[in-house]
Amino acid sequence: MNTVELIKKKRDGKILSEEEIEFLISNFTKGVIPDYQFSAFLMAGFLNGLNKKETAALTRSMLYSGKVIDLSSIAGIKVDKHSTGGIGDKTSLILAPIVAASGIKVPMISGRGLGHTGGTLDKLESIPGFRTDLNLDEYKNAIEKCGAVLIGQTKEIAPADKLIYALRDVTATVESIPFITASIMSKKLAEGIDGLVLDIKTGSGAFMKKFGDSKALALALINTAKAFDKKVIGFITDMNQPLGNYIGNWLEVYESVKVLQGEKVDDLLEVTLNLSGAMIYLGGKAKSIKEGIKISKEMIANGKAYEKFLEIVKLQGGDISFLKEPDKYPKSKVHEKLVADKNGTLESIDNYEIGMASLELGAGRLTMTDKIDPKAGIIFYPKIGDKIKKGDVVAEIFTDKEEKVDEVKRKILSAVKISNKKVSAVKLIKAILT
Amino acid sequence: MNTVELIKKKRDGKILSEEEIEFLISNFTKGVIPDYQFSAFLMAGFLNGLNKKETAALTRSMLYSGKVIDLSSIAGIKVDKHSTGGIGDKTSLILAPIVAASGIKVPMISGRGLGHTGGTLDKLESIPGFRTDLNLDEYKNAIEKCGAVLIGQTKEIAPADKLIYALRDVTATVESIPFITASIMSKKLAEGIDGLVLDIKTGSGAFMKKFGDSKALALALINTAKAFDKKVIGFITDMNQPLGNYIGNWLEVYESVKVLQGEKVDDLLEVTLNLSGAMIYLGGKAKSIKEGIKISKEMIANGKAYEKFLEIVKLQGGDISFLKEPDKYPKSKVHEKLVADKNGTLESIDNYEIGMASLELGAGRLTMTDKIDPKAGIIFYPKIGDKIKKGDVVAEIFTDKEEKVDEVKRKILSAVKISNKKVSAVKLIKAILT
Repeated sequence: MNTVELIKKKRDGKILSEEEIEFLISNFTKGVIPDYQFSAFLMAGFLNGLNKKETAALTRSMLYSGKVIDLSSIAGIKVDKHSTGGIGDKTSLILAPIVAASGIKVPMISGRGLGHTGGTLDKLESIPGFRTDLNLDEYKNAIEKCGAVLIGQTKEIAPADKLIYALRDVTATVESIPFITASIMSKKLAEGIDGLVLDIKTGSGAFMKKFGDSKALALALINTAKAFDKKVIGFITDMNQPLGNYIGNWLEVYESVKVLQGEKVDDLLEVTLNLSGAMIYLGGKAKSIKEGIKISKEMIANGKAYEKFLEIVKLQGGDISFLKEPDKYPKSKVHEKLVADKNGTLESIDNYEIGMASLELGAGRLTMTDKIDPKAGIIFYPKIGDKIKKGDVVAEIFTDKEEKVDEVKRKILSAVKISNKKVSAVKLIKAILT
Repeated sequence: MNTVELIKKKRDGKILSEEEIEFLISNFTKGVIPDYQFSAFLMAGFLNGLNKKETAALTRSMLYSGKVIDLSSIAGIKVDKHSTGGIGDKTSLILAPIVAASGIKVPMISGRGLGHTGGTLDKLESIPGFRTDLNLDEYKNAIEKCGAVLIGQTKEIAPADKLIYALRDVTATVESIPFITASIMSKKLAEGIDGLVLDIKTGSGAFMKKFGDSKALALALINTAKAFDKKVIGFITDMNQPLGNYIGNWLEVYESVKVLQGEKVDDLLEVTLNLSGAMIYLGGKAKSIKEGIKISKEMIANGKAYEKFLEIVKLQGGDISFLKEPDKYPKSKVHEKLVADKNGTLESIDNYEIGMASLELGAGRLTMTDKIDPKAGIIFYPKIGDKIKKGDVVAEIFTDKEEKVDEVKRKILSAVKISNKKVSAVKLIKAILT
């Protein structure tokens, strides 16, 4: 096999065999195929596509570039959830303890925030002491001991993905469904899971803004999960407005704790309970998603989910006193309220801009080396379709960056469209695919 | 401007501006844009194409990455010829002295052979002492002194082309008409020419095997020449069989000298005289190609072309005694004749295989670092449509590589298809485009 011939084959729109894809991935990972050849392959793959079999083969090669964790020594079915990311998307923090409390193992390897979207690791690390850098032994022990664990990608997991992603990022080959699918699935399959629930976001705050693209990605992920004999359910959920009201790392932990303690945050609960319900169903503890939702609600009502969250945080080194007494958490230098300047109905939100506003306040990062301020962020109140009166508080902002305040206030207010149209509330669960 | 955004633009099939192309080429040439980004751009350009304006802009950026020679201090119109290369294509050696003898300046920067095709530089260097590595001052002096010069690409000429070609070669992005066009034209335009005659080969021994592809390349080259206000005529000529009978470096010099001395090698003369006729016409010494052909014939008949060739060779350090007494040239260890094994008509030749056979005998190179044996090669006698009798000598081979002889003989004989069909002679000049 010859690298140039394989690039040529994909360039000419032909199908690569499993062996040919393995040749490309393993030799690129070993440094035998140089970046400049692999990036030509990436662009050819981006433009000519990869079919189901090629995507599964790519996933397999990336998966086996590293360690595939074996959790068979731990009893029970292991189920994880993956989200493509959004604004205020804190569902992992709520559903992991719910599902673990119901008796299913939740081995979760998550990512960091980048650009307009936040990341589960950054949120958890806003809890003083919380460690996301457990090694694989600690990871297994945590699952065995408390049923759930939330860590970051280790060096051992799918090293090919890290190398390939870094190259895609600088060669305009990111937005490709086969490559995105292989990137997500190679990491998820390495966790040692039996089942996976997917939350593919769609709308102005999502990575995929159009429903058709989100659905195509969901189907590619589902097909790939099935190629590896994993149980899988995919949700397409709305991301045209923040999920819940709190955006920013500590702010999202705070809201998650409130929900785990029983507070009704309607939209956040609807999405979270559907996902946790599906996880419980895949884990075999419910006969349907609906029954899984019922169990999830019970786990909140009986306090077991909240107790499980405290247990997880404690086990991973977090100081749970901040969860119990959130008032003692450090405060931002600036805390300002933004009010509506007219009466009307909330017609739409440019949710991407809300995510970028949060980033600019210090809650996010533009590049992976930027530092995050865990206190910073936004509380955003109204939902699409809500009636708004002039003077109503639309949002509150928290930041240490005083110089950014005026600009961010303008950004938030201009992202919000208040009109006299009659606007319905947004449907949150757009599709459930299996 | 941002490299990733520009790659994305071409990836999405959009048109890049002249400034954007200049940004990419100049920064790649300077080493600011790394190989892995440029190769993604190359693949995007390969698959989505570049239009006329983009091709001209690419040519311009590559041209001005180096020195553009100014020949305005030398009187007269300067005209060059470019061929896409073939088997036995020695026309440069014959037409340069013809055209120079007619009073037109011929500044010629040529290439080396690679793969199945030969190169003018290798042919000239088979003349003991001949130097193709003149510097730019020597280049100018030679044009002024004897009206023609034949040298290799210097470091100063279009350095971007060398870098880009090296990357295209290893990223499966060679066979792209816009990139081929910019590569050829950036070097030709650097020579200081006023006019250019193009010989685009088509057929089994050509780089472009299909007429449609050859025509597309010819038109792209013509459009680009016109964008730089150069006079241009493009020929599409047949390369389904060797041009003339001699293939190999010294063998081709030998045949060129014979033609310059008046020997009638019909096909070789027909192509050469059309090209030289067009050059003389573009140079303003004839009112038509036809009149240019008439002048070309006179230059051979009156001995001036041959005298000019001796003058060029002498000026570039070559030992003309070998041209006058070719018998004193070193002999190959092996000289064998191949005979036909049946009666019939020569239906077709796999001309690529003839080129590869010549390479295997030592006359060519697979990679740019391979060493060439100037003596090695093939004399190939019959033309398509010729009647052949069993026992007729089809070819003679010359080589020092005794171990290759049997394999090469088989290769040549199996490239030749003798049948009982009635076959017409091949039309050599397939199209003349302006």
